[in-house]
Amino acid sequence: MDSLIIIKIGGNIIDDELKLSSFLKDFASIESAKILVHGGGKLATKLAEQLNIPQQIIEGRRITDAETLKVVTMVYAGYINKNIVAQLQACNCNAIGLSGADGNIIQAHKRIHPTMDYGFAGDIDVVDSSFLKKLLEQNFTPIIAPITHDKRGQLLNTNADTIAQEIAKCLSTYFDVHLIYSFEKAGVLMNADDDNSVIKKMVAVYYEELKQKKSIFAGMIPKLDNAFVALNSGVKKVIIGKAEDIHQLINGEKGTSISNE
Amino acid sequence: MDSLIIIKIGGNIIDDELKLSSFLKDFASIESAKILVHGGGKLATKLAEQLNIPQQIIEGRRITDAETLKVVTMVYAGYINKNIVAQLQACNCNAIGLSGADGNIIQAHKRIHPTMDYGFAGDIDVVDSSFLKKLLEQNFTPIIAPITHDKRGQLLNTNADTIAQEIAKCLSTYFDVHLIYSFEKAGVLMNADDDNSVIKKMVAVYYEELKQKKSIFAGMIPKLDNAFVALNSGVKKVIIGKAEDIHQLINGEKGTSISNE
Repeated sequence: MDSLIIIKIGGNIIDDELKLSSFLKDFASIESAKILVHGGGKLATKLAEQLNIPQQIIEGRRITDAETLKVVTMVYAGYINKNIVAQLQACNCNAIGLSGADGNIIQAHKRIHPTMDYGFAGDIDVVDSSFLKKLLEQNFTPIIAPITHDKRGQLLNTNADTIAQEIAKCLSTYFDVHLIYSFEKAGVLMNADDDNSVIKKMVAVYYEELKQKKSIFAGMIPKLDNAFVALNSGVKKVIIGKAEDIHQLINGEKGTSISNE
Repeated sequence: MDSLIIIKIGGNIIDDELKLSSFLKDFASIESAKILVHGGGKLATKLAEQLNIPQQIIEGRRITDAETLKVVTMVYAGYINKNIVAQLQACNCNAIGLSGADGNIIQAHKRIHPTMDYGFAGDIDVVDSSFLKKLLEQNFTPIIAPITHDKRGQLLNTNADTIAQEIAKCLSTYFDVHLIYSFEKAGVLMNADDDNSVIKKMVAVYYEELKQKKSIFAGMIPKLDNAFVALNSGVKKVIIGKAEDIHQLINGEKGTSISNE
């Protein structure tokens, strides 16, 4: 099978114009098929503040009332997505910016929660990868904003990490998928304060061992649990590290590589 | 050749939620291949006002400084485009929302003008219809926001009427293209105040006659001149009328039909 690299980038890259532009040049030069999934929370928060729309973020999830949905749709699917696409086009990377509504890629439902009303926050029901597959086969590079829809006309604000994972699982039927989560650290660290303590390779047994010894920073556990879920659903490898090191993450020189082998 | 219907809708439909939703249901039920091009100026002006970004519109063209470009990118390519896509998906129309940067569809340059600085307003250089053609062949419906790029990383604000026309011309190599401009009147009127005075059919000779007699409302002349340019570049028919009458515009019962025959 052909390789497919799916990269999720977050605020630490998106909010810094120079870092983003440098990352996009690196990204454009990746030779295999590739997909970029982006967030953009801080810019959305800033616009909401300018418009006097109060924001509430609970356990990392944004309470998305109607006005906030408008803001995130504008910022994620409009401003950030199209600027990324234009910059990639300048690097001769034939990018196509998409939300989960386009081509009905990602269908979701309004989050159901026993006590909290998350508003127009969406949990994913199903990914239809047929359109993405066609684009990849034709050498296009999909750039995905974290907005989905419910197939009944409603847009929904959806977690970008989850989108990257669900797309990776779905496309692993057709590709050898490597899923890269970029964040502010150089990888999974033995010592959260020391960027030189990167755990280079992690398999399930070792992960369980580290968890029992409480050697894993609590904040990393959901990310790692998700990584193993992805691996058990067909994804070949999950890599965690800095977007600045993208080529070294791909060739194994940097970051934490998580796999079943 | 297969038929392709390209429809441009403007503010009078986009700004009215009920009218838009009713139009999109009608649009979804058009059986042939179709493309929708939308504007959205009034919503952009409203957001700019909320953000205290002064707006200047000269001869119908928005002076697009950096902050205004951000606003129009968010409103056109984000809010309006994705809401249209989600509503069409609910009607089982497999819509894909795009800007001119996506798939490098529309390359433009920053407007050059002897005395005015229009800022990031873009005039079209070239339409690459290969991606649109592929989408149409695969039964997708492209929804195009009036944002283009210069292939050097810069997004540009571009007139939606012109985008519709340039796409129509380019795709007329592969399709029998009918280009529909929807606006607030029932068609080209003999008497600008009487919606019952629609000129049903117009060919070049008749148009020249009406122009010489000064029977055409001055504001319509650029639109009609453009229509004849499109016809001379391969477009089969240009139709002008109300978006509310979309099926009757297509079957010839309403609106003004402009053709070379």
